[in-house]
Amino acid sequence: MAEASRTSEARRDAVFGRWVVFSPARSRRPTDLKSHNPTGNPSPGPGAGAPKPSCPFCAGRESECAPQIFRVPPDDALPWRIRVIENLYPALRRDIEPPPEPEVVDGEAEAEEQPGELAVRGFGFHDVVIETPRHDVRLWDLGAEGVRDVLLAYAARVRQLREHPAVKYVQVFKNHGASAGASMAHSHSQMLGTPFVPPSVTSRLNCMKEVFDRSGNCSLCEIRSKDTLISETPNFSAIVPFAASYPFEIWIIPQQHLSYFHEIDEDKALDLGSLLKTMLQKLSKQLNDPPFNFMIHSAPFGLSSSCLPYTHWFLQIVPQLSVIGGFELGSGCYINPVLPEDAAKILRELDCS
Amino acid sequence: MAEASRTSEARRDAVFGRWVVFSPARSRRPTDLKSHNPTGNPSPGPGAGAPKPSCPFCAGRESECAPQIFRVPPDDALPWRIRVIENLYPALRRDIEPPPEPEVVDGEAEAEEQPGELAVRGFGFHDVVIETPRHDVRLWDLGAEGVRDVLLAYAARVRQLREHPAVKYVQVFKNHGASAGASMAHSHSQMLGTPFVPPSVTSRLNCMKEVFDRSGNCSLCEIRSKDTLISETPNFSAIVPFAASYPFEIWIIPQQHLSYFHEIDEDKALDLGSLLKTMLQKLSKQLNDPPFNFMIHSAPFGLSSSCLPYTHWFLQIVPQLSVIGGFELGSGCYINPVLPEDAAKILRELDCS
Ligand SMILES: Nc1ncnc2c1ncn2[C@@H]1O[C@H](COP(=O)(O)OP(=O)(O)O[C@H]2O[C@H](CO)[C@@H](O)[C@H](O)[C@H]2O)[C@@H](O)[C@H]1O
Ligand SMILES: Nc1ncnc2c1ncn2[C@@H]1O[C@H](COP(=O)(O)OP(=O)(O)O[C@H]2O[C@H](CO)[C@@H](O)[C@H](O)[C@H]2O)[C@@H](O)[C@H]1O
Repeated sequence: MAEASRTSEARRDAVFGRWVVFSPARSRRPTDLKSHNPTGNPSPGPGAGAPKPSCPFCAGRESECAPQIFRVPPDDALPWRIRVIENLYPALRRDIEPPPEPEVVDGEAEAEEQPGELAVRGFGFHDVVIETPRHDVRLWDLGAEGVRDVLLAYAARVRQLREHPAVKYVQVFKNHGASAGASMAHSHSQMLGTPFVPPSVTSRLNCMKEVFDRSGNCSLCEIRSKDTLISETPNFSAIVPFAASYPFEIWIIPQQHLSYFHEIDEDKALDLGSLLKTMLQKLSKQLNDPPFNFMIHSAPFGLSSSCLPYTHWFLQIVPQLSVIGGFELGSGCYINPVLPEDAAKILRELDCS
Repeated sequence: MAEASRTSEARRDAVFGRWVVFSPARSRRPTDLKSHNPTGNPSPGPGAGAPKPSCPFCAGRESECAPQIFRVPPDDALPWRIRVIENLYPALRRDIEPPPEPEVVDGEAEAEEQPGELAVRGFGFHDVVIETPRHDVRLWDLGAEGVRDVLLAYAARVRQLREHPAVKYVQVFKNHGASAGASMAHSHSQMLGTPFVPPSVTSRLNCMKEVFDRSGNCSLCEIRSKDTLISETPNFSAIVPFAASYPFEIWIIPQQHLSYFHEIDEDKALDLGSLLKTMLQKLSKQLNDPPFNFMIHSAPFGLSSSCLPYTHWFLQIVPQLSVIGGFELGSGCYINPVLPEDAAKILRELDCS
């Protein structure tokens, strides 16, 4: 029978307003939780650096990719370290006319029959960031400067996309490992510039506004609990959030109250790069090289200045250890077998040096 | 390069208010989309009916299960066809004191430091419905009457849970196949009675209220588009929703405006049972026996009568064909490679008789 001594608890977070059920009795000890689908991307070893014959993201295969947007370093005479390119199979398309305003399906008449339903042309930008020319290098194999440069490449591209009046938000994200959605093994991330503010962004802003209206505080500035801290740098804190939806989920939060990721400077990007590298190393070591996603949660463009006091960007890392079932799909409420305090302690004490 | 002729489109639905990006260019032809993880549960064949040695849900192994709540038929002298039992590893626990009202973490003082964050004791009910005594029978292998009885068992248990003053909502759901979360292969469903209204329920109600306030119509009563209809019975319509988040997602909607699933009567349950059976057969045949989830979306208990005009229950079926990536996790916006019109046409024309 279930271990009656371990308590269940339901928690609601102050950023997304989501309920999460913590149910330690549904799992083994948190330290025993390991990925069943290790991504198995090899660390650089003997024979390292050779391009993989079929991989268009490897050095030397640039012609098999969709057009390049920019590269690092910019000088074509030097070998590239990072390439930002168009996605060959874009979900949203830069080559169609942007919708001036959300349009109503098939004109006004039908709109009256179908209230609430909206369709807009699939305009938008879908880019890929190739983080390294080498097939066998993972993001956290790069030095802190290498991770910094990837973060700066994200920021530079977001600043370009922000110039487009129809782009309302840019979602930067990384898929690592097939069960985290990655169809390409070569280390990369993606970003989508959308002509609408996505649903989770709207609900995050609404929740943080509510907290601010009630308390005068920004939800993310208020996260100061020692319990859930993993590590700190001069500019960032890495924590397991109070109501983490996923086991061993990590948030990296700038200590300064800042709305937009894309305004990050080189020093802070280096600081973030080193912390991100450490967190990915810890997850890889603790959880048996799990598939994972990370997402940068920033503010939508063109926010009125009254929204700035409660918008605070952060980076969320989600290791993929369990499958989502019908309860989560139906209710939007997650069941997490690992208490954030336990996960934070394990990650805090894990030595990756 | 991507097939430029196929259009991308972003759509927002009128029930959850979610944006979905339709991107046919990211996939093969919709008819080619098949599950890579067929669940491979055998149809009854030679040697059928034998219990699986290790399965506690099989007939004869009742003593290995957590306590029974009720059975169908009730008469113990007859063999059971359906059992509703407690979950052995419950996410929420019936044996702890229910929270009278959501509590604030560690009393008022800290609540002021952590606005928005809430923790409540993990009280609730987590039950399992064993849909058949036989290990090799899937839900859609039962006759329409058999599926009806499963639906009536759900409804009866929801009515029992509704009597508990601390239960605010019951999420009924089914996981079929490992990649849809199922840890047990024997055909079963689950339900969780929660001491809070889950986030997706709140956002669904808010969205439907907004539509109603603007148009005077219930979002689900308004779904009448011939394009996306798969099949109709006297009481129910099976459609692919206008802004389906997942390829080949199906909604079964009562034609009459009804807020609560648990008030269903025997005739309507038979009608729904036969339509649900057909839809599961169609998905299995078209998509190579895919893992799937289904969820019943009903109204929270104790809704004020002013909410009834815009609450309308329905059943959502989601085949699991692709992995969710960082874009979906971060933005709450889904990328669906199959247009609902195409999926509905394929499912409508598929013969399962
Ligand atoms: N030669 C080339 N030049 C340029 N680009 C190329 C290319 N070859 C491939 N690509 C693109 O590179 C990207 C690689 O992305 P990922 O491996 O992270 O996941 P993908 O986008 O396939 O889908 C995952 O992420 C999305 C978004 O979260 C989910 O919708 C989906 O289900 C999940 O599998 C793909 O989008 C692909 O279109
Ligand atoms: N002898 C016994 N007596 C009584 N009950 C028994 C039992 N043996 C097992 N059980 C219970 O039977 C249930 C079977 O459920 P499923 O196979 O549908 O998925 P599970 O709940 O494991 O998790 C899936 O669904 C949940 C909810 O969606 C997700 O959180 C999770 O990630 C996903 O894998 C389990 O909850 C288990 O606790």
